[in-house]
Amino acid sequence: MKKLKIIKIGGGIIDDVPSLHQFLQLFAQIDGPKMLMHGGGKGANEMLKALGIAPQMVNGRRITDGPTLDIVTMFYAGKINKAIVAGLQKNGVNALGMSGADGNVIQAVRRPVRDIDYGFVGDLTPVSVDDKILIGLLNLGLTPVLCPVTHDGHGQLLNTNADTIAAAVAVALSQQFTVELHYCFEKNGVLRDVSDDNSVILKINEAYYAQLKEAGIIADGMIPKLDNSFGALRQGVDKVIIGHALKINDPLKTVLCLS
Amino acid sequence: MKKLKIIKIGGGIIDDVPSLHQFLQLFAQIDGPKMLMHGGGKGANEMLKALGIAPQMVNGRRITDGPTLDIVTMFYAGKINKAIVAGLQKNGVNALGMSGADGNVIQAVRRPVRDIDYGFVGDLTPVSVDDKILIGLLNLGLTPVLCPVTHDGHGQLLNTNADTIAAAVAVALSQQFTVELHYCFEKNGVLRDVSDDNSVILKINEAYYAQLKEAGIIADGMIPKLDNSFGALRQGVDKVIIGHALKINDPLKTVLCLS
Repeated sequence: MKKLKIIKIGGGIIDDVPSLHQFLQLFAQIDGPKMLMHGGGKGANEMLKALGIAPQMVNGRRITDGPTLDIVTMFYAGKINKAIVAGLQKNGVNALGMSGADGNVIQAVRRPVRDIDYGFVGDLTPVSVDDKILIGLLNLGLTPVLCPVTHDGHGQLLNTNADTIAAAVAVALSQQFTVELHYCFEKNGVLRDVSDDNSVILKINEAYYAQLKEAGIIADGMIPKLDNSFGALRQGVDKVIIGHALKINDPLKTVLCLS
Repeated sequence: MKKLKIIKIGGGIIDDVPSLHQFLQLFAQIDGPKMLMHGGGKGANEMLKALGIAPQMVNGRRITDGPTLDIVTMFYAGKINKAIVAGLQKNGVNALGMSGADGNVIQAVRRPVRDIDYGFVGDLTPVSVDDKILIGLLNLGLTPVLCPVTHDGHGQLLNTNADTIAAAVAVALSQQFTVELHYCFEKNGVLRDVSDDNSVILKINEAYYAQLKEAGIIADGMIPKLDNSFGALRQGVDKVIIGHALKINDPLKTVLCLS
């Protein structure tokens, strides 16, 4: 099967314009079919504040009411997505920016209200991703660039976690491609010692992951990221790689695999 | 040749949510391949004001400085474009929202500074439109929805007139399709008497257009719209139709033709 690289970048790199442009140059050098998923960055919060809307967060997750969804959509699907697309075009990549509503590529369901009403937040289902359209776009020589906004198919846009979208797209496309999913952030990989950026754990399988969690070496925000990753591997993704966004061609990174 | 309908809607319909949704239902009923271009609406000005940025207009055209371009991009490519795409998906249309940077479908040049520096405003050239990608998207069953933002290929986004984009896309696609270009607004067509919405001139050819301008019956904002339209007809577009956005299936409208 043909290889496909799916790269997800987070907020830190997006907030820093020179770093983002350095990343886009590196991304442009990746051969073969590829896709980019991006998170939100802090800009949406700054815009909410400038407009007098207080950002509401619970357990690190944004409560997305109507006015917040408007700003989030403008910021993620408008400003960030188009800045990335224009930057990639400059570097010779025929990028196509998308939300999940575009081409109906990611259809989500609004998160059910249990203890907390997260508002217009989307959760993915096993049938959320339309791989046919994404493959069609890749076959046209396009590089899809997905922002963390989806829709419910009934006219409602939904704010949706970018890590989750990246994993779901990687799984859906693993029927047609050998998929390498890269989670890029501001560290060199999964670290044994968070204060030492060179203490990268080069390889983690499922059994080792359980040990590292047990020992508290992997904690907090890394747990959902790695849970997502192992879920993706179990559903057909070939490799998940966790590393620094500005060192995507560097061997120092963490490779996750099932065994 | 296969027929293609290209519909352009302006600001008035976008500013009124119920009208926009009524239009999207009508648009969904159009058979065969189709595309939608949308203008900006007044929302961007309201957001500029809320953020303390004074909108600058000269001769009805916006001066687009850096902060204004950011807001315009967020508003046009983010909020409006995604609201339209989600609304079309609800109505069974597989819409794909795009700026001109996406898929490099519309590459513009920054308007040269003569008397006035319009800022980040794009003008189109005869080679601005990439018809191959647009045809590829139509062949995937997608309905492109274009917002009035383009790019220069060097990383710069540009605010670009939506009427001009619609005409340029119609011309480019007239090599492969019999193209019908519809300019939709809040009147029933080109009116003989602006105070009488039923005084629609049903057919205008080039000679008659010259007479109507001479007599002052066609004036102001209609002149660039009709100049654009006749330009498109001379370059291969089959028909240009000017009518009400909420009556796209109604026979009362103005049809423009060369002779």
